[in-house]
Amino acid sequence: MLQRSVFFLSDRTGITAETLGHSLLTQFDGIEWKKHYASFLDSAAKAQAVIEQINTIAEQEGQPALVFSTLLDPVMLASIRRADCVLFDFFETCLGTLEAVLQQPPARIPGRSHVLRQDASYFRRIAAIQYALNSDDGANAKILADADVIVVGVSRTGKTPVCVYLALQYGVLAANYPFTPEDMGAIQLPPLLQPLRKKLFGLTLNTSRLQSIREERYPGSHYASFAECQRELQWQNELYRQFDIPSINTTDVSIEEISASIVNRAHLERRQHGT
Amino acid sequence: MLQRSVFFLSDRTGITAETLGHSLLTQFDGIEWKKHYASFLDSAAKAQAVIEQINTIAEQEGQPALVFSTLLDPVMLASIRRADCVLFDFFETCLGTLEAVLQQPPARIPGRSHVLRQDASYFRRIAAIQYALNSDDGANAKILADADVIVVGVSRTGKTPVCVYLALQYGVLAANYPFTPEDMGAIQLPPLLQPLRKKLFGLTLNTSRLQSIREERYPGSHYASFAECQRELQWQNELYRQFDIPSINTTDVSIEEISASIVNRAHLERRQHGT
Repeated sequence: MLQRSVFFLSDRTGITAETLGHSLLTQFDGIEWKKHYASFLDSAAKAQAVIEQINTIAEQEGQPALVFSTLLDPVMLASIRRADCVLFDFFETCLGTLEAVLQQPPARIPGRSHVLRQDASYFRRIAAIQYALNSDDGANAKILADADVIVVGVSRTGKTPVCVYLALQYGVLAANYPFTPEDMGAIQLPPLLQPLRKKLFGLTLNTSRLQSIREERYPGSHYASFAECQRELQWQNELYRQFDIPSINTTDVSIEEISASIVNRAHLERRQHGT
Repeated sequence: MLQRSVFFLSDRTGITAETLGHSLLTQFDGIEWKKHYASFLDSAAKAQAVIEQINTIAEQEGQPALVFSTLLDPVMLASIRRADCVLFDFFETCLGTLEAVLQQPPARIPGRSHVLRQDASYFRRIAAIQYALNSDDGANAKILADADVIVVGVSRTGKTPVCVYLALQYGVLAANYPFTPEDMGAIQLPPLLQPLRKKLFGLTLNTSRLQSIREERYPGSHYASFAECQRELQWQNELYRQFDIPSINTTDVSIEEISASIVNRAHLERRQHGT
């Protein structure tokens, strides 16, 4: 397989450079990426060390590395530009255009995107994480009443990571209600959920996937049997249908996609990034 | 205050467009951003609706909106380009350069960056989230032994959200150990932590900030008093010093910055994005 070295450079956390660089790399198949992370590049000495690493790799591998950068310091950026690499400078081009359009120079202060903002939205995100954890430990009527969305589904459909991601990325109060076999008599909502029907969002999975996830947890159990998985999913999916609960089949979908879909389809208000 | 409308357009989750667009906007002060999110733009009809919204806003506000896009579909992108807006197209320019450098055309399949990868690293992230939650419910020797890093600190220094973020963003197994008054006799490590000293990373806070956070939780309590906060922080910080535990003062630092610092300073291996 082809190999290529890639660097992610940043004055601060590197989260932006890594997110965008990764998005671009996924569009090219059949290449093994050798990733190097250089975050918190805040001195000429650190920059020099990275430049030497970039040049060494270009020499050893016979081809220049790809370098994804969100560096803001013009001097540091200029020194990287002179290294033997293919530089993707996400900020410089856009900042120039923005400066012209907004008729205002950029602040050029690193780390602003993830700096602590002493505002309601930041503390809202922290509170949302705590809320997701509390709800995961067992949701009661009081907790559920505060929810922006209540993610429902039978055991092991992936509710917990989705609720945590909704909290972290979007500041949404996402509660988690697992359907248990006790809920599965008639096709009706569990009593706790009846007054909250409009807040429900359902997760589902293909039977064989659910079986393999449960099997990994409790091998050979009734809980992990194909018949039990099928029975629970049939009850659940009929409930979604009869009560018009929006739902998503998560079999081939990542946490990020599931969460973004929920925000999009349930029209949830974002409380991220000081929005 | 000046106002400006901003759109974030994406074929899929919008996470990449929002991350980079937000990073750029934070560099311009004194402008109130009116944010519009259009993710999962996967049909000509949806694109047309957004174009009409963009044009209406340009007319109403007397200035074109800023549009941050990670759209991959060339036809859809061309139609957005004809709208009355300032388009920042994060993918197209970079993809062209990458295609030339890699001598290979991009796949142009939307949503690859957050698509489910049936690989070890994805399930590792899911497991890491579950691990952070289990550890938060009370860490025992067995849980702590599995940790990549053990985040320590007195109550309310922000350990939980940091551990959850480390799991989600980096796939790191981050356990959480709160120092309690029972730990605070001599300056020595709690017995559970003694064999794990190399894994510890400490959080600390300024006394007045810790006091106000605790006061919000238990108003008027001994736990929230300035004297108690000061006593606990003094014990903790002396422990960090004597046992060479790396630490970070989180008073003015966001979860993202704290987490990225820990990954950077503790040289933790990332397990994100199929790395």
